[in-house]
Parts: sequence; C-alpha cells; structure tokens
Amino acid sequence: MAQQGVDPRRLQVYADSRREEFEEKLAALVEIPTISMDPERKDDIRRGARLAAQFIEDVGGRAQVVDTPGHPVVVGELDVGAPRTLTIYNHMDVQPAAIEDGWQHEPFLFRKVGERYGGRGTTDDKGPALTALLAARFAVDSGIPLNIRFLWESEEEIGSPHFESFLKPRRAALRTHSVLVSDTIWIARGRPAVSTGLRGLQSATLRLETGARDVHSGLTGGAARNPLVELAALVNECYDVRTGRVKIPGFYDGVKKARKSELDSFLSSGFSIPAFKSAHGLRKLRSKDRRVLVENIWAKPTFEVHGFVGGYSGPGVKTAIPPSAEVKISMRLVPDQSPAKVLKQLRDHVRRKNPDAEVIPDAALAPYAGEFEGPYADAARQAMIAGFGKKPAFVREGGSIGAVVTMKKHLQAPIMFLGLSLPEHGYHAPNENFDWGQAHGGMKAFVSYFQRVSQL
Amino acid sequence: MAQQGVDPRRLQVYADSRREEFEEKLAALVEIPTISMDPERKDDIRRGARLAAQFIEDVGGRAQVVDTPGHPVVVGELDVGAPRTLTIYNHMDVQPAAIEDGWQHEPFLFRKVGERYGGRGTTDDKGPALTALLAARFAVDSGIPLNIRFLWESEEEIGSPHFESFLKPRRAALRTHSVLVSDTIWIARGRPAVSTGLRGLQSATLRLETGARDVHSGLTGGAARNPLVELAALVNECYDVRTGRVKIPGFYDGVKKARKSELDSFLSSGFSIPAFKSAHGLRKLRSKDRRVLVENIWAKPTFEVHGFVGGYSGPGVKTAIPPSAEVKISMRLVPDQSPAKVLKQLRDHVRRKNPDAEVIPDAALAPYAGEFEGPYADAARQAMIAGFGKKPAFVREGGSIGAVVTMKKHLQAPIMFLGLSLPEHGYHAPNENFDWGQAHGGMKAFVSYFQRVSQL
Repeated sequence: MAQQGVDPRRLQVYADSRREEFEEKLAALVEIPTISMDPERKDDIRRGARLAAQFIEDVGGRAQVVDTPGHPVVVGELDVGAPRTLTIYNHMDVQPAAIEDGWQHEPFLFRKVGERYGGRGTTDDKGPALTALLAARFAVDSGIPLNIRFLWESEEEIGSPHFESFLKPRRAALRTHSVLVSDTIWIARGRPAVSTGLRGLQSATLRLETGARDVHSGLTGGAARNPLVELAALVNECYDVRTGRVKIPGFYDGVKKARKSELDSFLSSGFSIPAFKSAHGLRKLRSKDRRVLVENIWAKPTFEVHGFVGGYSGPGVKTAIPPSAEVKISMRLVPDQSPAKVLKQLRDHVRRKNPDAEVIPDAALAPYAGEFEGPYADAARQAMIAGFGKKPAFVREGGSIGAVVTMKKHLQAPIMFLGLSLPEHGYHAPNENFDWGQAHGGMKAFVSYFQRVSQL
Repeated sequence: MAQQGVDPRRLQVYADSRREEFEEKLAALVEIPTISMDPERKDDIRRGARLAAQFIEDVGGRAQVVDTPGHPVVVGELDVGAPRTLTIYNHMDVQPAAIEDGWQHEPFLFRKVGERYGGRGTTDDKGPALTALLAARFAVDSGIPLNIRFLWESEEEIGSPHFESFLKPRRAALRTHSVLVSDTIWIARGRPAVSTGLRGLQSATLRLETGARDVHSGLTGGAARNPLVELAALVNECYDVRTGRVKIPGFYDGVKKARKSELDSFLSSGFSIPAFKSAHGLRKLRSKDRRVLVENIWAKPTFEVHGFVGGYSGPGVKTAIPPSAEVKISMRLVPDQSPAKVLKQLRDHVRRKNPDAEVIPDAALAPYAGEFEGPYADAARQAMIAGFGKKPAFVREGGSIGAVVTMKKHLQAPIMFLGLSLPEHGYHAPNENFDWGQAHGGMKAFVSYFQRVSQL
C-alpha cells in the first residue's frame, strides 16, 4: 500500500503557526464551566457543546449536538470519502472547581503564563481534544486518506451514564475501523506513555442503623451499639489498610496478574517515587518499592474509603452516639474482574460480618484491557516518536473511562490511547493546566498516527 | 436533737397549690434559649441567669449573678440563721435544639399538654431547679432550721469550664455542710433512683495527615495512604466494637470493680432492656444480659467514636482520597481512673499503632464516687419514700457532671443526688419534657430531705 507522504517540515510549520488559534479556542472552551456533576450547569454544558461543534465546523467539518436524557454528545465528521474511518473520543465536561479548593486564580478564567495554560478543563480534556482537532485539519488538508469522526461527550466525569443509550442505537451510523482516546496521563514529562488498560470501578455506600436518634454516650455508652465504629470495623474487615490487600473472599479470583514484561514496561515509563509523591502531594506511600507501587496502581484492584457520614464533625468533640451512619467506599477493578461479581462478594461479606449493615451500590464500570501489540500499538509507538522524539512506555491507567468499555462493546473496533496530559498538569486537582509543548508535540503525534492508520 | 415537725397535710396542700406558679416560672425559663454551646446565645444566658436570680428573690431569698470568664453563675441564699447550710446545685444552661432534629414543636416555646411540659431544658435542668426552689420556700416558711444556698451554673452542658475558677476563690464564703445535686435520671418511672457515682470523661480528636490535597483514587489508589481508613483501623485497635472492651494497654488498671451488692442494687432500679431500648430509641444492644448492661453503663469505662471528619459525605460516592482526616473520640471513665493517665495511655497506644497520627485532647473530667451509705444516703432514701412512696435504688450515673468533682474538691462536703428526671423525659434529645408528677413528688422529697439534714 502506498505511503501517503506528509512533509515533516510542513507539519512543523503548521504546528508552530497554530499557537494563537489553539490558545484562543482553549480559552473560549475553558471559560464555559461545563461541570457535569453540578445540575445547575446544564445550560453551560449545552453552551460548551455548541461552541465545540462550532470549532469542528471551523476546521471544515460537519458537527451536531446530539441530545441524551442527560448532557449532550457532540458528533463531528471530517469525511474525505476515504475507505477507512477513525473515531476520536474526548470529553467536554470537567470536574468541579472553586477558588477555595486552593486555586491561585479563578478556575474558569483562562490564565496564560508563558507556555502554560491554567484553568479547569485545560488538560482534562479540552486541551487534548483541541490538539486532535487541529491535527485532523492538517491531515485532511494534506490529503491523508482517513475519515475522522469526533465523539465529544459531556458526562465523562460522572461515569458516562447516558453514553451507552446514545451509542447503541447509532452503532451502524458510527461504524469505525478504530477508536483513538485522548484522555490519559503520562508518568513523566519527556517520556510518552500509552495506556493499554483501565481499571474498572464498583462504588457503594454501606449503611447501618442501630437506633432512632442521637443518644447520650454517658447514659447509654457501653450498652448502645455505635453504627459509625461498627462501619469502621466492617471496612477494616474488607481490607488491610497497611498493604491495601482486600480480604473479601473471592475478590482476587478474576484478577489477571500482570506479566513480567508488562511490569518491566510499567517501570520504563519514568515512574519515580519522589515525582509521584510530589505530583499528588503525598507524604508517604504504602510501599517504598517501585515495582510494588506500579503494580498496585495499574494492575491491582483496590478497596478504598472516601467518607463517613453520621455523628458529629464540628469543632471539638460532641459525645453523642449517632443512630445511623454511612461509609462511602469504592473498589477499583482490573481485568478480568466483573463489577457485578465483586458487588455480590461484597454483599456476602458484609452479610457475614455485620448482618445489620446494608450495601447500596453506586457506579459500576468494567475494567478494560486494550492492545499491547499489533498494528495500532505500532502506530501509537511511532506517533509518540514523531511527536516527542521518544518511544513511549506502554502502561495502564489506574482510573476508569466508562465510555471506553461502552465503545469496545458496541463499536467492536480496536481502541488506542494517545494521551497528552502530564502529572504536573493537576488532573482533577486545583490549578489544573496544560502546556503548549504537549499541544505542539501532540499535533505532530496525532498526524503521524492518522497517517499510519490510514494505511492499515 | 428535737425533730422539727412538718405537717404532711400542709406540705401536700402546698405542693398541690404550686402548679400554676411552677408552670409559669418553668415556661419563662424554658423560653430563654440558654444554649451554652452556642456563642451567639451569650446574652440569652445572661438574661436566663437574671430571671433565675429574680425567681430566688421572689421566694424571699437574696441572689446575685456572678460573672465568670465564660457564662455566669447564679448564687442564691435563703439564710435563716440556722447552724447548718445545704447547697443545692442545678444548672440553667441547656443543650442545643432545633425543630429539624425531630422536635414536634418549637423547642424554645413551652408546651403544656395535660401534666406534661415540653421544651428544651424542662427536665435538664430547669424543672428540677424550680422544684427545689419551691420546696425551699416551704421549708423556710415551715421553720426548718436550714440555710439553703443555690448554685445555678450556666456551663454544665459544656463541661463547666469556669466553675472551678468561680468556686475556688469563694470556697470560704460558700462553705457548706453538704451539697445536693438535682440533675440525674431515674431508671424507670415509679422507682426512684439515687446516684452514687458519675463516670468521668476524656475526649479527644485523633488526626492524621498523609497528603496535601485530595487525590484521584484511580491515579493513586493502591499506592496512596488513606487517612480516613487508617483512623478507622486505629480506633478498631483501641477497642472491640462488639463487646466495648478497650484494648489500650493499662486502661483498666484504675478501674474499681463494682461489688456484687452494688450490682444487685443497680438491678433493683427497674432497669429493663425493653424500656432502656425504647427510651433511647435503640434497636439492639451490645448484650442481652441485664447485669452486663447495667455494669457496662454505670461501672465500666467506654471508648466511643462520635464522628469522622474528612473525605466526601454528600449524596452518592465521590471517589477521591482525602489528604487528612480526624476522628472524634471519647472515653467515659469510672472510679478510680484518672483522665490524665488514660490520655497518656491513649497517646502511647496511638504512637505504637500509627506514629503519624496525632492526639488532640478535648474535655477531661474525673469520675466521681459518692456515698452509698451513711446519714446523707439515709436522708435521701427517706426523702424518696416521702416524695414518691417508694425506697430508691442506689445506682450510678453513666454521664459526667464536671461541677460535682469540683465541688467535692473545694467544698469538701458530702454530696448527695436527688434527681427527678425520667428516661421518657428525653434528656439531651428532641421533645425533651418534664411532668407535674415528678415536680409535685419532688417538692415533697426535697422538703423531707431538708428536714432530715437540718437535724444531722
């Protein structure tokens, strides 16, 4: 098959020239607070989707804002009539953000300092989406024979509750040869990383009621049961907080242990304990062994406690015993664990340990295992070299992207990840940012990837 | 010594005739929200203290509102020039209350339904204080040779932080032959109870910081430490939540085991498991054995968890790991445990189990052991018979009254408890109430007690 040539100098000149446009468009997207978690932002999300659709039209595509029972999905097309189609997934919704959380500027005012772009959504995921869009225009203008479709959803940060009901009835119209997701994070600047797997999730609230109202710990203490600390005991019977080892019987049955070659690849990603600690503001970790840590965050499931509800949480100590309490928990899952099976194991375990406690399931997402090898992995490897001058490390992602599992199921096409975010970009954290270096290299990487997959 | 006679019929007529006055005065006191925990109620507390002083003057006494660095103490005197003085301790401050907590009427509007008086403070402790006041007037008018002094403080519900600095410099002026405290609860209506001991208290906040900000449980889960659940593990290493048994080394060293005769007396109090459960709205208890339960609440120390701070407590589950967390704990102590010693044992235990956790002490109150036998106990026994027609059970109080320990130390006089509250009065709970039966019988009991101690 003939290799369609892209002149690297022309691509370099194009990327160099896009900076102003990139900054203007990113600023416009960031300044619309598309917080999917906040019901009051429904109109902002719609406004954000319309602007995103407009940007697709600006580069010569067709785009529409497709309604769902929740927030809309933007579907865009740069259809060049080529035999092959690539679908690029990004999302336009963002995490909540408030100046009180520790932001050094208003999170929804775009702030440019040199090559760094501050604001909620810059790196997750508006910056990477725009980078892919500008790369797609260059690809089309250069005659790369590839139809490029954009799926930009607005519910990623809330677990994509309506993405399946959007995708399933449209799966014929949205048929694609492969999918590219750009919503993942490198381990270290200068060392590209390609994710080949995602952890799944099963979250739940455990609830226990032992009385009808607050009781006086003097009058009843010693006789009254305490739901807060019974839940504390229960979560301690679910896992060992020092090692993270989950004690729920059967929990590890589905876990496919990472191969040695995979762990070696994880370690080649530039993962460093001091950098990891500093990126996340962590003092001490559960282990001092790099191999244990990368395996723990990418290839092992977790049990985690996110909050207790019930009792007194004001200043000082109020000595009442509450009548009921809740604990918010989640389990990150790895291939081939199943959320439904794990939920059942949790229910059984809770029933045995504290029959009065109730398990109220919350979000469920299957884990995802992608391709580590093959033509798409090769294309991704070459793309990262073209964009950033270095071979990527194949790693996994500790988090979950619900839409990926849905796309795998209904589009039945290979899915590859070309993420551009860096640890210091503050994903989900205050002072989130993106930078021109990643956008510039990203454009070149995307163009290289488009060219290669057009030839498959 | 000649027995000063009180005509029982005259006392009966007096008590019968006081109902309207009692209700009017109680209503006036209850409708001033003297919440010592709420800094915005400072003026209300002062207003409440002034009204209380006025009531003492209304019955022919002298009274003053004595300032402290916190809330004031009302000191009243009905001085008949007798050789003996009795000091009666009550308190005018109340627990917080809000209609949202489950009140069926505004907590600071007095509500009279038949013989039942609803409102915050009716039973704890404004009703008993007024009962003693009206009894004291009768005693004086009847020529009982006893000077009666009132100490009505306004910081009981916050652990009496300034009571010692009030009392210590005045201990000569406030010299007394004995003290009567009316701030305790019977175990069952119709079965008077006299408390002979109080549990002490050491409360504290345990705090653990493992990071600088919320982290994403996908990106870091498995490597990041979780301060919330490490604290949950820590409190589970402090005690066994099923039995209540405390695991802190040395914790039980100071505990004086209750004698068999004392446990028998506890059991004769009318303590019933169904009544206890229903009074406190509890579904199941830590034991089904009455003897275990009364020993647990009156004669054994506790470790209790009152609340966790940190993480997410809104609807659903947010899967972040918080950077720091706190747990509010308290230990109820029994004779002869010492708060300072127990605090040191806790610190040592925490240091061993989780060296990164911090112990921030809160309130400390020594336990109190009073007289089970002797002339004052005899007077209390006879008083309950005179007021309610039944011998009281000598029990202990599971709660703490800080001022009692302070009075024992500085007044060095015997302290006796004549409480009038019932379990169904909702002490510290929504829909707190008092009733005319307890006020009426209480007046007769107090007069009997005054008469007897005037003769000692």
